[in-house]
Amino acid sequence: MPSYFTRPLSRLVAELEKLPGVGPKSAQRLAFFILRMNDEEAQNLAQAIVEAKSHVQTCRVCFNYTDQDICEICRDERRDTGCICVVADARDLVAFERTNEYKGRYHVLQGVISPMDGIGPERLRIRELQQRIAQAQQDNGSGAHPVSEIIIATNPTIEGDATAMYLAGILKPLGIKVTRIAHGMPVGGDLDYADQATLIQSLEWRREI
Amino acid sequence: MPSYFTRPLSRLVAELEKLPGVGPKSAQRLAFFILRMNDEEAQNLAQAIVEAKSHVQTCRVCFNYTDQDICEICRDERRDTGCICVVADARDLVAFERTNEYKGRYHVLQGVISPMDGIGPERLRIRELQQRIAQAQQDNGSGAHPVSEIIIATNPTIEGDATAMYLAGILKPLGIKVTRIAHGMPVGGDLDYADQATLIQSLEWRREI
Repeated sequence: MPSYFTRPLSRLVAELEKLPGVGPKSAQRLAFFILRMNDEEAQNLAQAIVEAKSHVQTCRVCFNYTDQDICEICRDERRDTGCICVVADARDLVAFERTNEYKGRYHVLQGVISPMDGIGPERLRIRELQQRIAQAQQDNGSGAHPVSEIIIATNPTIEGDATAMYLAGILKPLGIKVTRIAHGMPVGGDLDYADQATLIQSLEWRREI
Repeated sequence: MPSYFTRPLSRLVAELEKLPGVGPKSAQRLAFFILRMNDEEAQNLAQAIVEAKSHVQTCRVCFNYTDQDICEICRDERRDTGCICVVADARDLVAFERTNEYKGRYHVLQGVISPMDGIGPERLRIRELQQRIAQAQQDNGSGAHPVSEIIIATNPTIEGDATAMYLAGILKPLGIKVTRIAHGMPVGGDLDYADQATLIQSLEWRREI
């Protein structure tokens, strides 16, 4: 890009353009907005970036983001340790937390199996999930398995479904109930506008009422 | 917002949400992206914000953004000092620069007259424009006015047009040609989809071909 902007400004535009969903036009808009911010506001923004990067790590147990060794959810005694909801990304965990419905624990895979992108199961936190389940079994001593259910909540996409199948394959032999979140019509959706794949799933996943 | 995020992360989300066009969802998306950046990239982004804020100022002559006392355009000897294009905002200046067509100078008003927002002419850089013109006259000594044309390039909106009228009112008595950028059909536009105001303007601004 030719230098329509003064150097520090064009550098800021270039840095902002690296963000997802920020094209040249929005980067410019954001940069001009930042220039009009007062010094303290701009400082706060810059500092928040640096601090998030330096203080946020992943939980040693479930790989959710946390500023401590073990995340708040894993430390919360009131949450059911017997149920683990497996998600691809910490964002998906947040989506479930927003519902205020789920009271079990989580496990963040940090991705899905995607041969096209060269991501095999070994790149995900699957080994850690297995160790976590084994550890729970060991701590429990004898009797029924302390982890009673694993809910696989990866996206209903080819990669997400493949990851779910793979996980089911290695977890079921341990004698644990493995479930998958339902695929079907979104609430408030319109059958007339739904895609074929969703309609087929909504039939396949139907249940008696 | 309840604390679905760890504190440094929720702070980053909150700061990003203050940016224009960034809602809660995109702020979250950007924050997660920043967490996945490597340290150097995040540092670069934060630093670009701080540096832009500390090094960028407005040009003493035309009020364009610059990292020096006088901006590059005002220092460029090859550009015609006799023609000043008056824009509301530095962004508009950049838009004209991108065309690579205009070779005169600029003057950034830093806004438009907008009584609804309590912005009167005294809040804009109009006095500075008058001084600039008077200075050019003085430097020139005698003869024709050194500033031969003022192009008023504020937006074709009520405020932009009002600002243009106001400027014409104070500049024309100085014996300078004051022009307004054309209002009409955008290139590639469709008459069928054009709004009435644009069509009316396209008739009013018609010329012989």
